Amino acid sequence: MPDNKSVIQIGMIGFGNVGQGVYRLLEKNRSLIESKVGAQMRIKRIMVRDLTKAREVTVPEGMLTTNFDDILNDPEIDIVLELMGGYEPTRSYLLAAMKKEKHIVTANKAVLSMHWDEIIQTARQHKVDIYFEAAVCGGIPVVQAINDGLAANNIMSIYGIVNGTTNFILQKMTEEKKSYKEALQMAQKKGLAEADPTLDINGMDAAHKLAILSSLAFSKRVKVEDIYVEGIDRITVQDIEFAKEEFGMVVKLFAIAEVEGDELEVRVHPTLIPQDHLLAKVDGEYNGVLVTGDFVGTTMYYGLGAGNKPTASAVMSDLIYVGRSVHDNVAGEISNCWFLNDNPQIKRIKKMGDIKSRYFLKFSVLDQAGVLSAISRILGEHRISIASVIQKEQKKGDKVPVVIVTYEAKEEDVQEALKKINGLPFVQEETLLIRMDRGE
Amino acid sequence: MPDNKSVIQIGMIGFGNVGQGVYRLLEKNRSLIESKVGAQMRIKRIMVRDLTKAREVTVPEGMLTTNFDDILNDPEIDIVLELMGGYEPTRSYLLAAMKKEKHIVTANKAVLSMHWDEIIQTARQHKVDIYFEAAVCGGIPVVQAINDGLAANNIMSIYGIVNGTTNFILQKMTEEKKSYKEALQMAQKKGLAEADPTLDINGMDAAHKLAILSSLAFSKRVKVEDIYVEGIDRITVQDIEFAKEEFGMVVKLFAIAEVEGDELEVRVHPTLIPQDHLLAKVDGEYNGVLVTGDFVGTTMYYGLGAGNKPTASAVMSDLIYVGRSVHDNVAGEISNCWFLNDNPQIKRIKKMGDIKSRYFLKFSVLDQAGVLSAISRILGEHRISIASVIQKEQKKGDKVPVVIVTYEAKEEDVQEALKKINGLPFVQEETLLIRMDRGE
Repeated sequence: MPDNKSVIQIGMIGFGNVGQGVYRLLEKNRSLIESKVGAQMRIKRIMVRDLTKAREVTVPEGMLTTNFDDILNDPEIDIVLELMGGYEPTRSYLLAAMKKEKHIVTANKAVLSMHWDEIIQTARQHKVDIYFEAAVCGGIPVVQAINDGLAANNIMSIYGIVNGTTNFILQKMTEEKKSYKEALQMAQKKGLAEADPTLDINGMDAAHKLAILSSLAFSKRVKVEDIYVEGIDRITVQDIEFAKEEFGMVVKLFAIAEVEGDELEVRVHPTLIPQDHLLAKVDGEYNGVLVTGDFVGTTMYYGLGAGNKPTASAVMSDLIYVGRSVHDNVAGEISNCWFLNDNPQIKRIKKMGDIKSRYFLKFSVLDQAGVLSAISRILGEHRISIASVIQKEQKKGDKVPVVIVTYEAKEEDVQEALKKINGLPFVQEETLLIRMDRGE
Repeated sequence: MPDNKSVIQIGMIGFGNVGQGVYRLLEKNRSLIESKVGAQMRIKRIMVRDLTKAREVTVPEGMLTTNFDDILNDPEIDIVLELMGGYEPTRSYLLAAMKKEKHIVTANKAVLSMHWDEIIQTARQHKVDIYFEAAVCGGIPVVQAINDGLAANNIMSIYGIVNGTTNFILQKMTEEKKSYKEALQMAQKKGLAEADPTLDINGMDAAHKLAILSSLAFSKRVKVEDIYVEGIDRITVQDIEFAKEEFGMVVKLFAIAEVEGDELEVRVHPTLIPQDHLLAKVDGEYNGVLVTGDFVGTTMYYGLGAGNKPTASAVMSDLIYVGRSVHDNVAGEISNCWFLNDNPQIKRIKKMGDIKSRYFLKFSVLDQAGVLSAISRILGEHRISIASVIQKEQKKGDKVPVVIVTYEAKEEDVQEALKKINGLPFVQEETLLIRMDRGE
């Protein structure tokens, strides 16, 4: 066996917010970090697009480069830390680095969830480590919990609030009665939402994370396109108020993966949960994930889901682990359990039409005789039972909201019923549907 | 390098509730577990005190033994799994096994917290792995979170509900207004509390866990005797009701470790927290731990803190990790970060008298003139400011409760003031003191 390495060298791709956070964290907690690794940790090169761009963090002369080859072809670099984001050229860089037997730490949920098989397979072939705690839920060590802490369990379900931006927006709408637009602007001001917040709002960011978490948890590759995704943009402050006042429920954007028989449900959508639900306490930019296993029961992981400091914490914990393994000459030796893809108990992804849920339905109708009976007849014809109805007196002639909460029903039935109801002459707007949590 | 091992062999000490849970878990989820290890997992021998004792789980002929040497001297056994509990002969068994280069997995918080230095040093010397996720908070992977997930952080504080028995009792007292005695009996009926529940009730079980968590988190050996410990047995259902109705607070048994300057506070005692505190939602036999780091911010870990299935989940996750390392010929190679004991930032354990807190004080006094002024004068003389006072009208002549909530004060001052107040002629009972959480 060769001598233990005394310096672990890192090549970094991307030097934005998170990259600078990692740099600062290493500077601040260097002695703690290096004593855990058992070796010096050195960021040797950082690849950026623009050498001259003003940055808050100043790095030594010559550390920055615009040429990936300066990292790829440097035999001293042990670990490539990818914080550039996006699909390409990131994917190519990661594959090339692994082929040169460099270990990988990445925070890139998009490239991982999209090119999972290719990336994992390449890591295996070349016996390199690949770690990505920061790709899901910022600083919360939930990837590790699923991979190691709960490794002995058949995971039954994951329920998570995994997008801080939408969680912040929904909370401002709930507690301060801000409109969706105002709340979004507040999130942008706070640096939580991007200038283009589309991927947060439409649920795709949550879907990327759910694809990674459920591929790991269920030992079954879950693709982003397997996941049913619905964003938060149709929900109004009035709906939120109504759900809270009449039913004691709050709206959260949930990422859900659940085993049902030999099928796996995977979906991202706004969900009504009781105010005393554990995840109801997950406020603002925080994330929270409930993971249930057949032996461990229900566990929960909570913390800041984004931001450069929590994300740097997760990145650095991966670097410490890989660095320690490099130091001890065992990196790439330990067969990472997330390479499994052969769960015999899960045969397929459940079709969205087949899922069952309770539903909160808000109909906007003209205030005239026979409306409720027409709606409830159609629901009944589609095997949907009504648990409660609320209609409040309004000024004559105006459109009025009628809210119906159903018992558990099949999604397909509900969608078909709504199609018919939306076509009725007295229905003024497309009916709003919010799924309800079944409860823990 | 030798060939990869295809069978990992385990010698188990103790075959009670948890041991049988581990056996069952391996039987039920064997294919999942073995595919993660990359090798077969075989429990070869189990040491018990009584071969003839009736057990729910039946094991193959010849697996049980009463002789530890059958495990110690079996060169095929790679891992010793210790589930016997207690201090001796457990300590001797663990040390002997490590000297024979057997890796250790244990759920024994008592022996670890008491003999930490000796056990950790022996593991180091003989280059063996030692893992103990199940020793703290049952199925919750909080040891791992602190060791790995948050490894890059200077940990600032730990606030935890780490004893399910007392948490269950306090909840029954709070929600169902059961007396302390009734609630304890319910816990015993549910199998949560031992026939002799002393170590749960008096806080020592929580102190064992806190000693382990804080030794890891702060890279500083914390001994059980360093920890200030107070149990829940003085709290009545009336106190709980009062705190809830008048102040909107609930009582939890908290294990607290917190860095203050260059000192570390470590204490276990009943604590009043607001009803909307994250940990207020940790009910019944669940545990919850808040861990705050300088980069990650506040994180939380939640789940079942005891019971044979969650504990088996934690034990088996350690066995998978160690088994994988044995399979890959790297067990004992990776320098475990919890071997650190050299945090230069923490100089000493803070004396309990020096801590600062807010206090809920319940005085039992005769209803006569001048009482409140005498009490408040003594408090004032000891630099204790009053935030609120509640005294309710009672039948003349009876003893009445007077509740005072203070602003932040020094423990030593409060204890001295109470000594004086308790000596006043109109004070009928020793004053009840409950510390209040400072808030997140």
